[in-house]
Amino acid sequence: MSEKGAVVIDLKFEQREMHAALEGAFPGRTILHAADKAADLSQARYAVMWKPDVDLFQRAPNLDVLFSGGAGVDSILATPGLPDRPIVRFVDQSLTTRMSEWVVLQALSHLRQMPTYLAQQRRSEWRELAQPEAKDLTVGVMGLGKLGLDSVAKLKVMDFNVVGWSRSAKVIEGVETFDADGLNAFLGRTDILVGLLPLTPETRGLFDSSLFAKLRQGGALGKPVFINAGRGGSQVEADLVSALESGMLGGASLDVFEQEPLSKESPFWAMDNVIVTPHAASASDIRALFRNAEVQMQRFEAGEALQHVVDRTAGY
Amino acid sequence: MSEKGAVVIDLKFEQREMHAALEGAFPGRTILHAADKAADLSQARYAVMWKPDVDLFQRAPNLDVLFSGGAGVDSILATPGLPDRPIVRFVDQSLTTRMSEWVVLQALSHLRQMPTYLAQQRRSEWRELAQPEAKDLTVGVMGLGKLGLDSVAKLKVMDFNVVGWSRSAKVIEGVETFDADGLNAFLGRTDILVGLLPLTPETRGLFDSSLFAKLRQGGALGKPVFINAGRGGSQVEADLVSALESGMLGGASLDVFEQEPLSKESPFWAMDNVIVTPHAASASDIRALFRNAEVQMQRFEAGEALQHVVDRTAGY
Ligand SMILES: NC(=O)c1ccc[n+]([C@@H]2O[C@H](COP(=O)([O-])OP(=O)(O)OC[C@H]3O[C@@H](n4cnc5c(N)ncnc54)[C@H](OP(=O)(O)O)[C@@H]3O)[C@@H](O)[C@H]2O)c1
Ligand SMILES: NC(=O)c1ccc[n+]([C@@H]2O[C@H](COP(=O)([O-])OP(=O)(O)OC[C@H]3O[C@@H](n4cnc5c(N)ncnc54)[C@H](OP(=O)(O)O)[C@@H]3O)[C@@H](O)[C@H]2O)c1
Repeated sequence: MSEKGAVVIDLKFEQREMHAALEGAFPGRTILHAADKAADLSQARYAVMWKPDVDLFQRAPNLDVLFSGGAGVDSILATPGLPDRPIVRFVDQSLTTRMSEWVVLQALSHLRQMPTYLAQQRRSEWRELAQPEAKDLTVGVMGLGKLGLDSVAKLKVMDFNVVGWSRSAKVIEGVETFDADGLNAFLGRTDILVGLLPLTPETRGLFDSSLFAKLRQGGALGKPVFINAGRGGSQVEADLVSALESGMLGGASLDVFEQEPLSKESPFWAMDNVIVTPHAASASDIRALFRNAEVQMQRFEAGEALQHVVDRTAGY
Repeated sequence: MSEKGAVVIDLKFEQREMHAALEGAFPGRTILHAADKAADLSQARYAVMWKPDVDLFQRAPNLDVLFSGGAGVDSILATPGLPDRPIVRFVDQSLTTRMSEWVVLQALSHLRQMPTYLAQQRRSEWRELAQPEAKDLTVGVMGLGKLGLDSVAKLKVMDFNVVGWSRSAKVIEGVETFDADGLNAFLGRTDILVGLLPLTPETRGLFDSSLFAKLRQGGALGKPVFINAGRGGSQVEADLVSALESGMLGGASLDVFEQEPLSKESPFWAMDNVIVTPHAASASDIRALFRNAEVQMQRFEAGEALQHVVDRTAGY
């Protein structure tokens, strides 16, 4: 195949930044925009998507490969008319590194009681709190994929005890790991729970009251903490609010929500022990996304195997 | 020498915690308390001190070795009647580790624009900010001693560029270092300045307008950030307030102040881009302090050289 296939872009990202990144991207390929409702997308062989339009696959019926604009593919899998074509997800060192920045920042914020110190600061109150250190606490990371593994390594460097959980068992030096069956044992060991799971039928609604109740109570921070940067669909927010209000949980850091943007009415905004960020833990670098997609398109056109292909049955 | 010398304790720490730590400490030694104003301290051969009473050395004139309750010795050196005896400072892995927790937390907080995100959270505002990553920024660490070196290593793991400054030149793999003469070059490279210096005549008032003006302007965060956990006497707070108000600095994290506790009137409390902690970056673990002091007393009584002895001329 010598001809370079056309690409349709359907990315619900900041549009100015996206158009800037498109300059010079995909050399020699026709670039189509799903946002142009009059455009004929029938020649498109590739689609690069983030939260695609419901009619995208109807308008572009001749796709060979689908590209996800992020690490997660839940919104693509949920789009009507999804063709039976390979889905390539976005895997990128800088995406991984930035997620670890966010995870380590949130774990340290709760370890070092920043929500309480910031509340004291607002009252001009000088008061030192009793302070456990990282090695007195265990961080439990759920999801040991590209993101989870990097966070685990950096949490270890900061001296936290770390345990990990994933669908299939993993071996990580210096880290006790658990597979799906070991969930209860994993939770009973965990003071700070970090969610880095994809949203799949199995992980939907996983973070509920019964799960929070199994976390270690009475650890060095007194109460367990919940940190989630995977997907909001994995958390039951009504349960999370109750757990925070009842003191079953001592705090939370949330980057993802059942509905995004988070509603103005959500109680999370006003909770002193909750840190809210707007699905910003690790945004895709759009230039890197286009570079990676071009590499895979060239592999595909050269008859080579695609990389980072999603397992549809597993859902990630 | 077979007799175990008596110890006088003069620690301005939380008293209940201190008395608990004393149980079982210094076996076989007489323990005296400076807080007991009627006590005869003349038999004391060792003093373990933090912010000692002005009359301590008058009441305890027969000391052989002085022990600092913390890493810094500025308050001991400033105490009237200081005898010409060795001063041993507190060096401890857990003190070092906890300082690095605080430093990495503060560097990540500014990198990830937490002050802005928290202000948005208070307004229930969902808005993603443009986000540089750690490798786009350079953290400049002033002071490459026990604490500075550990912070440097952990900041590197988090992917920051790191440069370092100390009195005498240091060689650290992957880190550009500068000695006293290289201060301006060091500052011109620095986006986030971290102070981990002792308070000495040379470092008093070092962090002033002229120093802030030399930090790199227009780096990936726009404006430089100042983080200080060394000693408040090294910062000129009037200059710091002006630099923050004028925008010469984009933010700060301060654990130490010219006067502690920080006055209720200080403008720092209310500044959105300033994070205040109450000299809590790394509190001494009192049990470890007593254990370490006992080890040195035994070395001294066995005629061995003391460790971690302060250089009085250098002042640290
Ligand atoms: N908030 C943000 O800004 C942001 C940014 C990027 C990504 N994300 C989210 O982070 C997720 C993870 O990304 P990644 O690149 O690390 O994905 P990945 O490499 O596919 O790893 C996913 C991990 O989750 C585990 N897992 C999946 N389903 C499971 C189940 N039912 N039970 C137990 N473990 C299960 C997998 O187990 P196995 O190892 O056994 O397969 C794997 O360890 C993405 O799917 C996305 O939703 C969020
Ligand atoms: N906020 C807190 O909770 C807290 C807790 C513990 C300690 N501290 C503070 O942190 C300070 C540092 O502790 P540490 O254990 O790392 O001390 P350290 O091992 O003695 O190291 C001090 C470092 O500062 C450098 N330095 C000293 N004077 C200098 C000057 N005039 N110009 C340039 N560099 C200079 C030294 O240079 P050389 O390497 O050339 O000697 C050395 O690298 C303590 O003195 C204390 O004030 C604060």
